[in-house]
Amino acid sequence: MNDKPQLTLVGSGLAGPLLAIELKKRGYGVRLFERRPDMRKVKISAGRSINLALSTRGIHALRAAGVWDEMRRIIIPMRGRMMHAVSGELSFMPYGKDESEVINSISRAELNIALMNAAEARGVTIEFDQRCTAYDARTATVHLRDEETGNERVLESEVVIGTDGSASAIRLALQTTLPRFNLSQQYLNYGYKELTIPAGPDGKHQMETRALHIWPRGSYMLIALPNIDGTFGCILFLPFEGKDSFAELDSDVKIRRFFEESFPDALRLMPGLVENYKANPVGAMVTIKCAPWHIEGKALALGDAAHAIVPFFGQGLNAAFEDVTVLLEMLDRSSHASKTGSGGALTFRWERLFAEFEAARKVNTDAIADLALENFVEMRDKVADPRFLLRKKVELALEAKYPGHFVPKYAMVTFHRLPYAVALARGRVQDRMLGELCDGIERVEDLDWKRADALIRRELTPLGELQSA
Amino acid sequence: MNDKPQLTLVGSGLAGPLLAIELKKRGYGVRLFERRPDMRKVKISAGRSINLALSTRGIHALRAAGVWDEMRRIIIPMRGRMMHAVSGELSFMPYGKDESEVINSISRAELNIALMNAAEARGVTIEFDQRCTAYDARTATVHLRDEETGNERVLESEVVIGTDGSASAIRLALQTTLPRFNLSQQYLNYGYKELTIPAGPDGKHQMETRALHIWPRGSYMLIALPNIDGTFGCILFLPFEGKDSFAELDSDVKIRRFFEESFPDALRLMPGLVENYKANPVGAMVTIKCAPWHIEGKALALGDAAHAIVPFFGQGLNAAFEDVTVLLEMLDRSSHASKTGSGGALTFRWERLFAEFEAARKVNTDAIADLALENFVEMRDKVADPRFLLRKKVELALEAKYPGHFVPKYAMVTFHRLPYAVALARGRVQDRMLGELCDGIERVEDLDWKRADALIRRELTPLGELQSA
Repeated sequence: MNDKPQLTLVGSGLAGPLLAIELKKRGYGVRLFERRPDMRKVKISAGRSINLALSTRGIHALRAAGVWDEMRRIIIPMRGRMMHAVSGELSFMPYGKDESEVINSISRAELNIALMNAAEARGVTIEFDQRCTAYDARTATVHLRDEETGNERVLESEVVIGTDGSASAIRLALQTTLPRFNLSQQYLNYGYKELTIPAGPDGKHQMETRALHIWPRGSYMLIALPNIDGTFGCILFLPFEGKDSFAELDSDVKIRRFFEESFPDALRLMPGLVENYKANPVGAMVTIKCAPWHIEGKALALGDAAHAIVPFFGQGLNAAFEDVTVLLEMLDRSSHASKTGSGGALTFRWERLFAEFEAARKVNTDAIADLALENFVEMRDKVADPRFLLRKKVELALEAKYPGHFVPKYAMVTFHRLPYAVALARGRVQDRMLGELCDGIERVEDLDWKRADALIRRELTPLGELQSA
Repeated sequence: MNDKPQLTLVGSGLAGPLLAIELKKRGYGVRLFERRPDMRKVKISAGRSINLALSTRGIHALRAAGVWDEMRRIIIPMRGRMMHAVSGELSFMPYGKDESEVINSISRAELNIALMNAAEARGVTIEFDQRCTAYDARTATVHLRDEETGNERVLESEVVIGTDGSASAIRLALQTTLPRFNLSQQYLNYGYKELTIPAGPDGKHQMETRALHIWPRGSYMLIALPNIDGTFGCILFLPFEGKDSFAELDSDVKIRRFFEESFPDALRLMPGLVENYKANPVGAMVTIKCAPWHIEGKALALGDAAHAIVPFFGQGLNAAFEDVTVLLEMLDRSSHASKTGSGGALTFRWERLFAEFEAARKVNTDAIADLALENFVEMRDKVADPRFLLRKKVELALEAKYPGHFVPKYAMVTFHRLPYAVALARGRVQDRMLGELCDGIERVEDLDWKRADALIRRELTPLGELQSA
């Protein structure tokens, strides 16, 4: 018998196949079960085709797994935010300090397909239409129902990892099994709806390709991310109820009038808006924090299953992939340390691994959850404010002068692999500092450099080694 | 057919029978199901015999239901906190401004029995050993399993109210049924264990009867509440793990030594301590906030099922009973308003009632949840601090001078029926004020009355009508 247990992964979304690839590489048997049908064979339902923003943390994990080259072909780098005023006036705000600091638009479905292909090419088996209905820690069994045939089966598995997203069946098992399970699941009062801007007659993008487009309107917004086929995937964020809400837009006339008044330039590029709007569902957005993430060494929740976040920092995917990075680093270290391995010792090893993983990771996933909530206000409201744009310019000026010492919050999260909790804490300090430095000035040229220098030296330690962590 | 639907109540703890009495009085058919056996026929398991503190809100609800006279016989009024120093030195701090402001020690089990007796005497039927395994909103059915026979049955019910406590099956149905259910369940890292101080040889209490005894020790504490049989019900609060924790006390010697060092005077009154300690389980304490509390007009969670809180303000019971008060007031108003009543209209009425109840109530139960968490620090740590005792004296002096204008936070929560959210908000303002007024003084006689007068007039509106609400 192999001393490495057979691992069961529940959920073949994004973290699942990536983790499967990494585990397979290390000689573990991996079985991957997915509730949905194989999206390579059936049409993808609306809501799964959304665009994501892949950035440094996610790319690092893909590279480590040896699949980055397979993914590169399906991304479009975005250099910054393109803000659309109601007048149609455009203004561009770069994300980073130079061309190396970009985020990458990628179709969730395309990425999922590419990852599943890569996993299967490496010997991972994925079984589709397999709903996990329960996990029983006492017997260490996963209960699966075939969504096609209705057949149920019970699968013994020494170690189960739930990569089954925000509605995780494995997390529900933690909740109902563990005696003192802390859980917070908080939905936004906002929903989202996917819409499309088709490619132009020439098959090309009808707006600037290398940007994330935003129509910030205070209490709501529209965004658009480029796809490789010349289309833009748009997402409309509105409150569920009340003024300017999904509930309010209950007729063709109202839908069209709302877009005419709020997003006239986008509307001109959306001939199928009303049909598109009515055909697509309204999705909900949730922040989930919980603890513990594991039952002994038997079951673990990872990625959205353990810490779902709202999409406004573009970090849900990146945080889930970083989970894989951290778990694998710890697994490799513990494998090197203990080359013994009776069954009992192995069980103990997984329990310690899962406990260490959670201890290291939860403080950071809690932080990105909070950052993501804060960024919603920034995107839908502040980006339209000249004072905010001034702060962004001041941030970049400070970073240019103090590289590796003053790094904007957005950059710490997006272009570095600093722990999220560090980014959050430094971001708070920097926000205060920026408030002081921007107070009373109109242009970045008016910045009081002496004051800035004093503040930075007093309040911030150089990132130093942390930066390259 | 009666136009009043048959109501099903799940959980015959404290809120269940009280609500049943009130509904029965108004002509509703009420069926009450309880998971546990009938505690009047079987021995009560340890952990259900705990003492509670009944105060103004709870008494108001009992009085309104016409059962207060039946409960009076089983309470012991407590006039204040009796603090026990390690030296054995005692100091007494009154809870209220005079003898009318007391809290009442009552055995949870005795109260439960008295309420069930009262409910049955008024024609309510209670079925025991009936575990609610599920609630299905689609079919409006409650699934029950007989814990004795294992028999399962499915019961149709137009309206179901979950009074089934912090581990509520009805709340779990809300969580798994409602599309955007917000839930926060946070356990303390502290557990509790019940212990007993027996009656003296004369059958009388061995310590001051009319007080809640506290042994505050910074990071942990022991408390004792009087029972009518001459005993004291004690509760030991310790962290689960770490220094001075339940995990640490893993032998007879360590248990005894811990009490010798921390609670020597209590130990002398506890001849059976070690056996008592080992026989009783360690309980967990949780704060639960959720929303919504109801599925349309079909199912509602009430009391701990909707908003479990930690016990340190003595308000869990009182808050649950106040739920009954508020729900019944709303029901009475809506019954007077609409004397029509086809089936459809009735359903609508319950939905509106439940929505109004939640809207009015949740802000207050959230507030008492936060207040209860804060009070833990006060009880285990601050009450041993002379600065804190000075503040308490200043509070009482201010109240005496400004009755109905400055009312201490503890009194607003415990001796008044002000909305908890008002108590929380005013309490915050008053805390700041007390910090200012106590700064630099050593005795209540040194209080700067001019400053106090200015602060109170500037920061606080007179409670006026609110006070008598």
